[in-house]
Amino acid sequence: MNNTFGNHITLTLFGESHGSAIGAVLDGMPAGIRIDEELMGHMMNLRKPYGAISTGRIEKDLPEIISGVKNGVTEGTPVTLLIRNENVRSADYESISLKPRPSHADYTAHVRYNGFEDASGGGHFSGRLTAALTAAGAVCMSMLNEKGIQIGTHISELYGIHDRDFDENNLEEEIALINQKVFPVFDEAAEEKMKEAIKEAAASQDSLGGILDTAVTGMEAGIGDPWFDSVESMLAHALFSLGGVKGIEFGSGFDFAKMKGSEANDPFVYENGKVRTLTNHNGGLNGGITNGMPIRFRTAVKPTPSIGIVQKTVDLSSKENTEIRIQGRHDPAIIHRARIVVDAMSAFVLCDFLIGRYGNVWSAGGGK
Amino acid sequence: MNNTFGNHITLTLFGESHGSAIGAVLDGMPAGIRIDEELMGHMMNLRKPYGAISTGRIEKDLPEIISGVKNGVTEGTPVTLLIRNENVRSADYESISLKPRPSHADYTAHVRYNGFEDASGGGHFSGRLTAALTAAGAVCMSMLNEKGIQIGTHISELYGIHDRDFDENNLEEEIALINQKVFPVFDEAAEEKMKEAIKEAAASQDSLGGILDTAVTGMEAGIGDPWFDSVESMLAHALFSLGGVKGIEFGSGFDFAKMKGSEANDPFVYENGKVRTLTNHNGGLNGGITNGMPIRFRTAVKPTPSIGIVQKTVDLSSKENTEIRIQGRHDPAIIHRARIVVDAMSAFVLCDFLIGRYGNVWSAGGGK
Amino acid sequence: MNNTFGNHITLTLFGESHGSAIGAVLDGMPAGIRIDEELMGHMMNLRKPYGAISTGRIEKDLPEIISGVKNGVTEGTPVTLLIRNENVRSADYESISLKPRPSHADYTAHVRYNGFEDASGGGHFSGRLTAALTAAGAVCMSMLNEKGIQIGTHISELYGIHDRDFDENNLEEEIALINQKVFPVFDEAAEEKMKEAIKEAAASQDSLGGILDTAVTGMEAGIGDPWFDSVESMLAHALFSLGGVKGIEFGSGFDFAKMKGSEANDPFVYENGKVRTLTNHNGGLNGGITNGMPIRFRTAVKPTPSIGIVQKTVDLSSKENTEIRIQGRHDPAIIHRARIVVDAMSAFVLCDFLIGRYGNVWSAGGGK
Amino acid sequence: MNNTFGNHITLTLFGESHGSAIGAVLDGMPAGIRIDEELMGHMMNLRKPYGAISTGRIEKDLPEIISGVKNGVTEGTPVTLLIRNENVRSADYESISLKPRPSHADYTAHVRYNGFEDASGGGHFSGRLTAALTAAGAVCMSMLNEKGIQIGTHISELYGIHDRDFDENNLEEEIALINQKVFPVFDEAAEEKMKEAIKEAAASQDSLGGILDTAVTGMEAGIGDPWFDSVESMLAHALFSLGGVKGIEFGSGFDFAKMKGSEANDPFVYENGKVRTLTNHNGGLNGGITNGMPIRFRTAVKPTPSIGIVQKTVDLSSKENTEIRIQGRHDPAIIHRARIVVDAMSAFVLCDFLIGRYGNVWSAGGGK
Repeated sequence: MNNTFGNHITLTLFGESHGSAIGAVLDGMPAGIRIDEELMGHMMNLRKPYGAISTGRIEKDLPEIISGVKNGVTEGTPVTLLIRNENVRSADYESISLKPRPSHADYTAHVRYNGFEDASGGGHFSGRLTAALTAAGAVCMSMLNEKGIQIGTHISELYGIHDRDFDENNLEEEIALINQKVFPVFDEAAEEKMKEAIKEAAASQDSLGGILDTAVTGMEAGIGDPWFDSVESMLAHALFSLGGVKGIEFGSGFDFAKMKGSEANDPFVYENGKVRTLTNHNGGLNGGITNGMPIRFRTAVKPTPSIGIVQKTVDLSSKENTEIRIQGRHDPAIIHRARIVVDAMSAFVLCDFLIGRYGNVWSAGGGK
Repeated sequence: MNNTFGNHITLTLFGESHGSAIGAVLDGMPAGIRIDEELMGHMMNLRKPYGAISTGRIEKDLPEIISGVKNGVTEGTPVTLLIRNENVRSADYESISLKPRPSHADYTAHVRYNGFEDASGGGHFSGRLTAALTAAGAVCMSMLNEKGIQIGTHISELYGIHDRDFDENNLEEEIALINQKVFPVFDEAAEEKMKEAIKEAAASQDSLGGILDTAVTGMEAGIGDPWFDSVESMLAHALFSLGGVKGIEFGSGFDFAKMKGSEANDPFVYENGKVRTLTNHNGGLNGGITNGMPIRFRTAVKPTPSIGIVQKTVDLSSKENTEIRIQGRHDPAIIHRARIVVDAMSAFVLCDFLIGRYGNVWSAGGGK
Repeated sequence: MNNTFGNHITLTLFGESHGSAIGAVLDGMPAGIRIDEELMGHMMNLRKPYGAISTGRIEKDLPEIISGVKNGVTEGTPVTLLIRNENVRSADYESISLKPRPSHADYTAHVRYNGFEDASGGGHFSGRLTAALTAAGAVCMSMLNEKGIQIGTHISELYGIHDRDFDENNLEEEIALINQKVFPVFDEAAEEKMKEAIKEAAASQDSLGGILDTAVTGMEAGIGDPWFDSVESMLAHALFSLGGVKGIEFGSGFDFAKMKGSEANDPFVYENGKVRTLTNHNGGLNGGITNGMPIRFRTAVKPTPSIGIVQKTVDLSSKENTEIRIQGRHDPAIIHRARIVVDAMSAFVLCDFLIGRYGNVWSAGGGK
Repeated sequence: MNNTFGNHITLTLFGESHGSAIGAVLDGMPAGIRIDEELMGHMMNLRKPYGAISTGRIEKDLPEIISGVKNGVTEGTPVTLLIRNENVRSADYESISLKPRPSHADYTAHVRYNGFEDASGGGHFSGRLTAALTAAGAVCMSMLNEKGIQIGTHISELYGIHDRDFDENNLEEEIALINQKVFPVFDEAAEEKMKEAIKEAAASQDSLGGILDTAVTGMEAGIGDPWFDSVESMLAHALFSLGGVKGIEFGSGFDFAKMKGSEANDPFVYENGKVRTLTNHNGGLNGGITNGMPIRFRTAVKPTPSIGIVQKTVDLSSKENTEIRIQGRHDPAIIHRARIVVDAMSAFVLCDFLIGRYGNVWSAGGGK
């Protein structure tokens, strides 16, 4: 509940933006998973603000692994990942946001926590906590990669600018390709236009959102549970945890509204002795369970609510209408950084399902 | 897990299409909730196949309430709802579907359950089980209505035909209006076109999907939890449990990809001493927590996979490609019936949050 | 929560003593487990009142299996077990117990459910619900037996009368022996004395409790989880669910208070190439995890609170002190019947651990 | 699961004895609870080894509160408590215990984690982790004390030496008294004898266990859930998480085996307009729910398995029988330190129930 999620493995998230540290506890992972530290460093880098990412180097500030790992291999006990904050509050402080920023969690947290919330920099709701999710996801991704499962995400749309689709016939290579890109767009012209749009938004102190498109290869058929723990349910649960996510669709998603059943159904065929479908409108999921085809889904991310433009808001102390201009440097877009958090959360969910299916007996370099 | 869902209250679903009965256990509801039996009858009716619904009368076959209710009022112990099946299998039977129907759960269930599944009529994956969800949702809706919370859903789009939107200025009345309609469309011309499209699909043994648009009024601010149990996470988890659901978006959802932050943010204002937002692009949810505005979301439902047209599939015993023509009467569309299941699941999730917030001390006709 | 329990599989209990039915939903069991119906009948018989049990025949009123089983084999979907009540209340009824029976749940349920509880015959708190637990336990026991795991329980003590201990050198045979006995006592003289004590208690309208002693053989080492999900934690959680249970000890339990570490520790030795311990003071559990030795625990059951003797109690309506004489036929002892419920709950817990360890891929007659 | 526990609030435990830190995440506590830091310091002190405790001063090394607390008051978000280890392993290390210490978790962890466990100093199974539990329990105890609920524990028996019982007529004062004692025994002569026995055990490199007796005052009636979440179930689940705990009994517990129902039942009476029972054989719990009387239970703790005497064990690499002499300084008894961990875990469980009952709306200094 609340800050713990998962059926067979659990992920517990903690920390505030301006507290001493943020972190996550990943519990229930099989003993014997070798954590791919280069992968973790790469994923952490992809989540960083653009300037830092562009250098391409492995940053030194990997999370501290407090527990659960011996010589780079999971012990089976809770893996705790800690990331210290640099911008720490003083011991005594007043941090209630009495002028809530529009479309942030300031106002809702204020009501939810009866005025006791820490609002500095978004507090517990800060996007900074996704750094811990990314680190935990890297542990899960290490396990998936060992099993031949790959996940990749590109920006499908940003402010009306569209990237080309994944090439379905070449999906593993496409995933490998996009995972190397700091700004994850296939089409170079589209990439330039998107970056230009972001720069323009930045110049006008505004922000942009977009749509992420994710592909997962290598998942065998038969993974998932009926009804409440469908793969769609668990992935959506995990992804809607992320602050700016406001929509998710699997396979053809909302486009199904324009299709007939005869167009939407994915016929089965044998290919090289293995069952597959001729099309993949269902995004690899029938009845909530994997059918062996790539899992495909798209995630809508709203524009970053932190903008420098003057906005209307209320003053919760005087109970009057007022205005706010959010100070400081703001990300005009986070979608290119959110992509790796989407991958990380997806990796967690898929590990959860695989461990539910096969249990927790595992061996490093071997797998089941 | 699996067939049990919820944090503070739980819903457990059981049964198969051709077993002796289906049902649900709703546990943790406060004692003292008066179940609105007329509402339950009405909701059960709205879920029925179109012909039956059109009569508008309360059907006799309400679920049997096995436990947890005394004189129409919840006792606080598990509320068990049982619905007998009429089309029951013989004692010994062979029901494995060796020619899986495309885009159904036949193939994935076969792999998931290692060939031991009951495939008759979809078995545990049958849409019939949503009757139990609807009945359980009616219990939850009774509690919400007592608190002044209303939920309503219309068909926003079907095969490219669009209904008009909810009138945001008149939302309670709009919900009351749509909840009386068996075919939930506001615009009469659109309703006719949609029905015509469904008839045409039926005539060609095909099927159609669509998009449902839901509004919730009366939810106070401050309900929801951070991160993994955001309102979006829990609603999406619940709604993606439903067989044909393939997409969900909150507020502006996927349209956020075309917006700037300055357009997407919802400014706060005081109105009659109460905080509200001037727009509602976020669908009543900031940081995963209610802000007091109507909760708004849209659900994409794929075309019913059961179509009478010949389709390609595989023969799992001979391991060869083959064809299938699904026999029997099929619903050419289920979206107008799915709407009440969406409402039912939403009611469950909102009750779960309210009980988490206020505990389980309640009183009939009063409440917190 | 509440009426649902389990980590990897779940057991949901519902019903009231005088409602239309009681039952249980067992979810998450692997597909392909053949349910031993004779075993289920035998276990149900052992739970029945003494007169009925003594006939030794398989009763006809096995629970109705509503779902999840095909031709006697689990499908992997929820197994629902329904047992109809014969003594059903009228449609409208008043059942609040305003003179709570001492040491029953009448008073506490009245406060807990704010006066909305069903108190007829104990309502949801009735021992009758253990019939559903026993049936669910029989499904779990079928799986354990397939894997060579056996569970048996005898009455270790009743009103100061002691049975001999299990013969540790011959534990499988001892378990087989005790599982055939309706009144589970090894020593014939002790059995006679216990029965005599029960008859005397009955004659004076009084009741007796006792201590159950349980042995589990065939559990491999390495099953269990650290800290909160130790085998002791999960077994105790399950067993303290049962109405009259007031104490549990593993291995030497409370006798450890009189021992030194050098006496209490169980030294490891190799025997036939396998690790075992020379003694078993720890009841097969070190650090909450099985060590391959028999699991041993004892359960204290208080005297049945329903006695015919006049007792002091309160009148909750007049708020005055008063007296109560509980009418009707009462079991002077339930401990010989409780033994099979203890076995059933233990079977559930061990299945839960095994499925967590090895996942849900299984095959009938096959095992892992 | 595993290292996360709780229904309405959750406690997640992490760390290893020789890792960089241990800690706990306490999630779901209402916002606005003032943490009693003096109480936390006192509880942490009581858990320390005897020498350190006897000074009676507040130690400097309180846990670092990483998150969830602002100016000493809970924010409603996860409270993370971190305690750094001083005796940290080198970066690369080999820590598998190939000569498992009898009655420790060495062997079972080795099998459970397939040889990937960290065995240094007990690893994740080390009693050191109870420091984090104690700190988390202090947060819960702060909330309970605000509501007038008190918990206290004394050593009822140690190596056959008995303390006097709690004076039931003066329970609050008795709890206050025992909570001030580092060695929690009422009777001075018994205290001296127990200390003497511990010294003798130490001198012979042996160890002792004992029985703890706990009393809780101030719990209102009606708290607890039926069946699987009885107060007994949840308390036992929590307490059996602790390494050396091997038995728990509520009220008269195992003594019920010698009693008749007419002796065991607790008659209800009105006293000053309030319902109470004349006796308290049920330890304040009827049907798993509080009846307003003090909650009473006893916990059996086995002798510390770490003893200096030579013991038989196996060599897991050569697969031969061998001997082990455990090096280093060992606690000859931990029961006087375990008492505060029992209190801490009990405080957590009672908070969990209260928050389930009343929700998470709270206010500092006020509360519900």
